[in-house]
Amino acid sequence: MPMKPLISQGLCYQNEQLLILNQQKLPQEVEWLACQSPRDMYDMIKTLKIRGAPLIGVAAALALAQFAEQADDDNEILLAGEFLKTARPTAVNLMHAIDRQLNAFKRSNNRVEIIELAEEIFAEDAILCQKIANHGLALIHAEDNVLTHCNTGGLVTTGIGTALGIIINAHRQDKKIHVYVDETRPLLQGARLTTWELTKANIPYTLICDNMAASLMRQGKIKSIFVGADRIAANGDVANKIGTYNLAVLANHHKIPFYVAAPYTSYDKNCQDGDAIIIEQRAPIEVLGYYQANEWLTWTPNPCPADNPAFDVTPAGLITAYIFDSGVTTDLKAKQCVGTN
Amino acid sequence: MPMKPLISQGLCYQNEQLLILNQQKLPQEVEWLACQSPRDMYDMIKTLKIRGAPLIGVAAALALAQFAEQADDDNEILLAGEFLKTARPTAVNLMHAIDRQLNAFKRSNNRVEIIELAEEIFAEDAILCQKIANHGLALIHAEDNVLTHCNTGGLVTTGIGTALGIIINAHRQDKKIHVYVDETRPLLQGARLTTWELTKANIPYTLICDNMAASLMRQGKIKSIFVGADRIAANGDVANKIGTYNLAVLANHHKIPFYVAAPYTSYDKNCQDGDAIIIEQRAPIEVLGYYQANEWLTWTPNPCPADNPAFDVTPAGLITAYIFDSGVTTDLKAKQCVGTN
Repeated sequence: MPMKPLISQGLCYQNEQLLILNQQKLPQEVEWLACQSPRDMYDMIKTLKIRGAPLIGVAAALALAQFAEQADDDNEILLAGEFLKTARPTAVNLMHAIDRQLNAFKRSNNRVEIIELAEEIFAEDAILCQKIANHGLALIHAEDNVLTHCNTGGLVTTGIGTALGIIINAHRQDKKIHVYVDETRPLLQGARLTTWELTKANIPYTLICDNMAASLMRQGKIKSIFVGADRIAANGDVANKIGTYNLAVLANHHKIPFYVAAPYTSYDKNCQDGDAIIIEQRAPIEVLGYYQANEWLTWTPNPCPADNPAFDVTPAGLITAYIFDSGVTTDLKAKQCVGTN
Repeated sequence: MPMKPLISQGLCYQNEQLLILNQQKLPQEVEWLACQSPRDMYDMIKTLKIRGAPLIGVAAALALAQFAEQADDDNEILLAGEFLKTARPTAVNLMHAIDRQLNAFKRSNNRVEIIELAEEIFAEDAILCQKIANHGLALIHAEDNVLTHCNTGGLVTTGIGTALGIIINAHRQDKKIHVYVDETRPLLQGARLTTWELTKANIPYTLICDNMAASLMRQGKIKSIFVGADRIAANGDVANKIGTYNLAVLANHHKIPFYVAAPYTSYDKNCQDGDAIIIEQRAPIEVLGYYQANEWLTWTPNPCPADNPAFDVTPAGLITAYIFDSGVTTDLKAKQCVGTN
């Protein structure tokens, strides 16, 4: 039974072809890349052609399903799944999705399970987003200025998005909001992708450098902050794009609500706290300049030593509330977070 | 009496020619530009070919002295001085230097005073730097990791620098320090210029994006923070490069000492507090990308609305101590800050 057609803003499966929207080239160029194998998907995740915690889970699941339709040997499927899980260490959605497929396959030895689960994971992600967007709506008031970091919209989910989904939903409900967008160095997901999504959605926004947010907060220009999550530990600590912890400290100092929005697939009950989350260290060159037209343009002396942690950890104490598909909670331990599955 | 030769890392006056090192092209290219008139200097300051609070004061003083050697009419000199003062609104050193020359000239009606004061201001700035560097030395301990923002070294003074001067001095005293350098978006003075200076001085450093500092602090990797100042108000509030206030809040949260280093020429006793400091708003395009080879390369959608305040204000309460040429003080009001002149 072949996988049915699946189409989102950044993913497309049709006629046995898996295409991904190359997020590295946006907004200058809209390029769709064909993924032929788990190896292709691994490379695309690694190089951030495809990115965002929820989407890499879904995309890897589709790549494994595509492979399950072709592989000669069942054992190859298991190996491909384990390989896909190593593409990025911090976001747990990837491990969550692949483990779901592999566990089902190990139980049944039926490849159809892998394919059906890919379809299910794809469909479910959009539903999770809509639930998050609905729950978060009450936290945004009319004419609020909200701040967001990185990109957490339709590009990185199969639905409306997580943190950005809430913002888009508030706009659709005519709340007349204004969005401040952190550019999100070094890879500029805010400047390139969130601006692109907000432009398409006709939502008024202002791009800022990451180091400007503090000054805006001091001037009373930010009413609330919404970010996504790559992994939420059992105690509520959150790993997310580098710069998130910075914002959380600033929000705390200025007494501004700081919200984390995520599907239950970002929650890792087996991870005790933030210290147990592996933070991906990426290549220093990303900090030395920026990527365009297939090359790194650098502005530093050469050589130039640099650090490049892709994520940071925000302790639970700095988070005002979590917006899950299952509802809004201020205390993770008191809440059943295992969601719909 | 012609002005005597004056040479620093970023300025050169010789044979009636005033040259400035184009800071916009560093570190890719070392280009010296001839300044022929106050108008040239105004444009060079405005476009950040020459930058840094102390240096723009010195450079403007030299440009006025050069003009005083050539002008037909005394009144033109007064007008040129007033014009130069409008090149950048936030750093007070510019106004301080030009007012010193204009006031002397108005008293004596003798152009030589303008020239001699330019020489004096040039020489004095290097002495002020050395005093700051010596006073600050006790605040850095052996093997400390220190963090700095923007560029405050020999490029922006006629001497060793202010905040970076202290760091360079500590290295020379064999304190075996390591420097974390904030890249300092949008104009990347940290990534382009501080790295360049540290490389030349053989001081070990690591470049980071501005949003990474918080995470390093949480991991205990930053022992102290040193920044410069564009203007210090009478109550101790400090205007400095955008991102400084962000760092001050982070330092406060992590209980890390936060030091401001500046010559008395950055102190504005006529400015009551930070609210009275005019913050220069620069062109949004600086936030949309970066400048190289005489053009702006952008990575955002087009058009893209953006904010670009060049400075922020750090309230006195977040500053551990001020390092002036006259000494280290934790309480500005209790201290005589008028320095050596």
